[in-house]
Amino acid sequence: MDLAMIGLGRMGGNMARRLLRGGFGVVGYDRSPEAVRALAAEGLAAAPSLEALRDLLPAPRTVWVMLPAGSATEAVLEELAGVLEPGDLVIDGGNAYYKDSQRRAAWLGERGLLFADVGVSGGVWGLENGYGLMFGGPPGVAARLEPVLRALAPSPGLGWVHAGPVGAGHFAKMVHNGIEYGMMQALAEGLNLLRKKREFGFDLARLTEAWRHGTVIRSWLLDLTAQYLAGDQDLSDIAPVVADSGEGRWTVLEAVELGVPIPVITQSLYTRFESQDEEDYDERLLAVMRKMFGGHGVKKARD
Amino acid sequence: MDLAMIGLGRMGGNMARRLLRGGFGVVGYDRSPEAVRALAAEGLAAAPSLEALRDLLPAPRTVWVMLPAGSATEAVLEELAGVLEPGDLVIDGGNAYYKDSQRRAAWLGERGLLFADVGVSGGVWGLENGYGLMFGGPPGVAARLEPVLRALAPSPGLGWVHAGPVGAGHFAKMVHNGIEYGMMQALAEGLNLLRKKREFGFDLARLTEAWRHGTVIRSWLLDLTAQYLAGDQDLSDIAPVVADSGEGRWTVLEAVELGVPIPVITQSLYTRFESQDEEDYDERLLAVMRKMFGGHGVKKARD
Amino acid sequence: MDLAMIGLGRMGGNMARRLLRGGFGVVGYDRSPEAVRALAAEGLAAAPSLEALRDLLPAPRTVWVMLPAGSATEAVLEELAGVLEPGDLVIDGGNAYYKDSQRRAAWLGERGLLFADVGVSGGVWGLENGYGLMFGGPPGVAARLEPVLRALAPSPGLGWVHAGPVGAGHFAKMVHNGIEYGMMQALAEGLNLLRKKREFGFDLARLTEAWRHGTVIRSWLLDLTAQYLAGDQDLSDIAPVVADSGEGRWTVLEAVELGVPIPVITQSLYTRFESQDEEDYDERLLAVMRKMFGGHGVKKARD
Amino acid sequence: MDLAMIGLGRMGGNMARRLLRGGFGVVGYDRSPEAVRALAAEGLAAAPSLEALRDLLPAPRTVWVMLPAGSATEAVLEELAGVLEPGDLVIDGGNAYYKDSQRRAAWLGERGLLFADVGVSGGVWGLENGYGLMFGGPPGVAARLEPVLRALAPSPGLGWVHAGPVGAGHFAKMVHNGIEYGMMQALAEGLNLLRKKREFGFDLARLTEAWRHGTVIRSWLLDLTAQYLAGDQDLSDIAPVVADSGEGRWTVLEAVELGVPIPVITQSLYTRFESQDEEDYDERLLAVMRKMFGGHGVKKARD
Repeated sequence: MDLAMIGLGRMGGNMARRLLRGGFGVVGYDRSPEAVRALAAEGLAAAPSLEALRDLLPAPRTVWVMLPAGSATEAVLEELAGVLEPGDLVIDGGNAYYKDSQRRAAWLGERGLLFADVGVSGGVWGLENGYGLMFGGPPGVAARLEPVLRALAPSPGLGWVHAGPVGAGHFAKMVHNGIEYGMMQALAEGLNLLRKKREFGFDLARLTEAWRHGTVIRSWLLDLTAQYLAGDQDLSDIAPVVADSGEGRWTVLEAVELGVPIPVITQSLYTRFESQDEEDYDERLLAVMRKMFGGHGVKKARD
Repeated sequence: MDLAMIGLGRMGGNMARRLLRGGFGVVGYDRSPEAVRALAAEGLAAAPSLEALRDLLPAPRTVWVMLPAGSATEAVLEELAGVLEPGDLVIDGGNAYYKDSQRRAAWLGERGLLFADVGVSGGVWGLENGYGLMFGGPPGVAARLEPVLRALAPSPGLGWVHAGPVGAGHFAKMVHNGIEYGMMQALAEGLNLLRKKREFGFDLARLTEAWRHGTVIRSWLLDLTAQYLAGDQDLSDIAPVVADSGEGRWTVLEAVELGVPIPVITQSLYTRFESQDEEDYDERLLAVMRKMFGGHGVKKARD
Repeated sequence: MDLAMIGLGRMGGNMARRLLRGGFGVVGYDRSPEAVRALAAEGLAAAPSLEALRDLLPAPRTVWVMLPAGSATEAVLEELAGVLEPGDLVIDGGNAYYKDSQRRAAWLGERGLLFADVGVSGGVWGLENGYGLMFGGPPGVAARLEPVLRALAPSPGLGWVHAGPVGAGHFAKMVHNGIEYGMMQALAEGLNLLRKKREFGFDLARLTEAWRHGTVIRSWLLDLTAQYLAGDQDLSDIAPVVADSGEGRWTVLEAVELGVPIPVITQSLYTRFESQDEEDYDERLLAVMRKMFGGHGVKKARD
Repeated sequence: MDLAMIGLGRMGGNMARRLLRGGFGVVGYDRSPEAVRALAAEGLAAAPSLEALRDLLPAPRTVWVMLPAGSATEAVLEELAGVLEPGDLVIDGGNAYYKDSQRRAAWLGERGLLFADVGVSGGVWGLENGYGLMFGGPPGVAARLEPVLRALAPSPGLGWVHAGPVGAGHFAKMVHNGIEYGMMQALAEGLNLLRKKREFGFDLARLTEAWRHGTVIRSWLLDLTAQYLAGDQDLSDIAPVVADSGEGRWTVLEAVELGVPIPVITQSLYTRFESQDEEDYDERLLAVMRKMFGGHGVKKARD
């Protein structure tokens, strides 16, 4: 056994799978028995508890935690601190605020455990294409991590980087997602403008497909968008509500803290906030102000 | 008779009224007989046609056109060109694109008529408070306009300005409205943030009322907002739809033409566009992109 | 003696002065002897130490702390906790993050002291015009604060408000400043656009002076701007560098935390960041990208 | 001879070259003899005049005009109208405002000439990688254009599209460039934020290189950025001045005309405007306002 994966959901499950296919011996743990069972059939050694997980790995151990952001990562790290032994390495590959990662590294370090924060990009396509990986941690940790990263990355020498000390991995991932927000928004604005130019009757499926080749904006996000539009370009079944994970918010907090202007990334986050807002109190206020100074008519709600 | 007012609606009607109260002899014309009748009771000389209007005024005449933006101003000016005599002065006090005003001045000039463009601010409160006025035209025109402006303004020496040559009046009014958009949006954003801070239970009526005195943001827009909120701060009957007149759009066009960044004014315009949009195709696209790369759930329309 | 003022700088000094003129007995303390001396000549009772300040006031005491943001407020509050007696009331009238105020209120409360946070607006004009005041604290505190607020406000019944529980005063002031950022930016953008329209040769001093009366954008910020431009409209001696205090940043942090879009306020903050930035790394990167895909020329630094 | 290329600069020259390599017979014309000479050595048939160009091509002719935006396209089209014969096809492959293209198509159509507008993307890399191409024109034109597009595109069946009627090609290219502005800005903001996080000492060359593989933001713009940063990541020789061609401006004009919010694309344009501005009058105004209400210090110019 080479390492353990805790959390076998959409991300962790596929990462374990890619490691198994890469020849790694992987111990897995998940609260959901089904998640474990599916992977056991592909060679995963299922651990019924964290203690069992520890006993299935030779020391010094490598334990990769891959839980959804904002969930039980903190609790699992605390549990692990009571189970693992000095010299063991804990990796948080989920989306976490880099300040939390710095704090956790310090706390685990006091208990003799090593910690690395790894930003993982690639989503549901990572199993097939490999993942983009950026990690933070001391140099000694890098050497222990590298074989795993080489297997998870698109190819052994590409797509992973030692970004800096602890925190730098999650910081880099945070900024990556900020950039992602901006790119997505730019694409959405442009395509919306094309759609609203009714007189040209653009076929956005064919146009985005063509843009994928030879243009300056060719990109993976464009590839995916073209792929979806090929099947449906009216999007009439899709609600105009865009969730946001913490990454975009953290990026703005950091920009404010450092005094760095990131107007486009911030605006992309605000578009999502706007899409989530059901009261629209600000727009109501604007309508009222116009009415007050100009006597302009106001549309009644539910007109 | 001192001058004519063409267009006796919300703006023109009150302006005629203020001039009548100021001792001016005013000839009025409007397509709607009721609008004329109401003012005739207050001393307006009603003209049944533009010819009659001309004949009721001594030469050289002053004819103030006050029609809603985008409406029949062009047609009325053309009609006037056929009715008036060389040396007569035509004023457009409505909201017009300054390039149109420049063109119209040239066209009327070829026919011997003078032209001035006057930006008028103050809305429905102008009758009582007086109007803010900025006008464009040659110096000779200024001398003829001044008595009228002194009567329309809040006080004879305040609130009116010769902004520059023809076009400068409507240009200044355009920018005034751009600033207005930005101030309104700043207020709306701040009040929305207060409202969303549920734990403090802010009483926005009392807060905005207090802000009216002594603070840095005291302003007429705040006065009006406080006045409305005193009666209703839930705004549940107001639809979150904000109309835009041409002024904000022209401001952005000018910024693009001159290469001047006006991010806040532009964003204020875009908030209105967003409020008018019922398809939200851009947000749908964003939801789809997240689904495509991350396997994130998408809210179904009309969930 | 009615109350004490700690911090007699630009804000605190003038507030003490206004209270003295209002008939209050004010004890004052400041690290700088000159600040104290100047006010002593106007009737202030100078306290050489916090202990002396305590002894000059009858219990239960009212102590107003008015120090610049980010400075020694925390330290002074800790000192006061060791000097004052249960039932005494401490007011922080400086700009503070509302979460700090909540924390401080709890900490002082454990020591038997009452706390109120007051947002104060009005700047250097407050002595003459009165201050806008919004405070947070329990109802019992309100009764003790009111006489002071009535004297500081523009008039006894106007310009002050009990905004809510502890924290609500500084929260309301924070949002007030966010709105202020947006209004300032809207004005700056509009005036810049007018200036760049060289062909009209706008006299911005006369135009802003006229706008002060009758227009929709009339406001105190416009009054001040017109007043400055009357003396200098080229601003050639003014560096284009705009400082930001914490208030704008806190407003954005709160918006991100609550998920409320405030694009215009945020953009106003970013304009300030941009003005403070001397490296302009983002613009250099954009120039490089253009060069890379399009072979576009790049301006060499210090060309 | 299969077609003519007018304009043999950075774009037209390489496109002619790619067509020659693809087996096409190409007649070329350029005001600069050197540009022609270089290509003549690679098989181009040099035409000393437009008449000669006409005579070198069999009717019905295909003439591709590829001139820098804002330059002599209009004049060349007028000249061509006097030289070509009914049934000949003129293509404008340069960056042009789609409304100009619609007007030109109508004007040429009255003279019996066909017209197509082609948006061409790919920059200096197109010779090697092929170009992204989107064209507007009637169906009959499409059939005549296709063989040429198949040769210019990255591969015969990929990267070109019939976008719609005349104007739709340049419209689609305009929006493409708007999206490009937004993507560039998102990248620049994110990398700037990383650079300002001094404590992590990010190596942006290694980080962007890693991001090229497996991440959500992988894209051609990122490829090019990584390539440049590999040689220089301080950019100290690059001036922070970002030019803008007309495309970004036209995109905003269209958004304003259609009432479609495109905040991120617009902000990206404004960042460029800001980088081009040497007066910074707006920031000076903001500094002055702060001084006026708060007595805040103002940095003197050239401090």
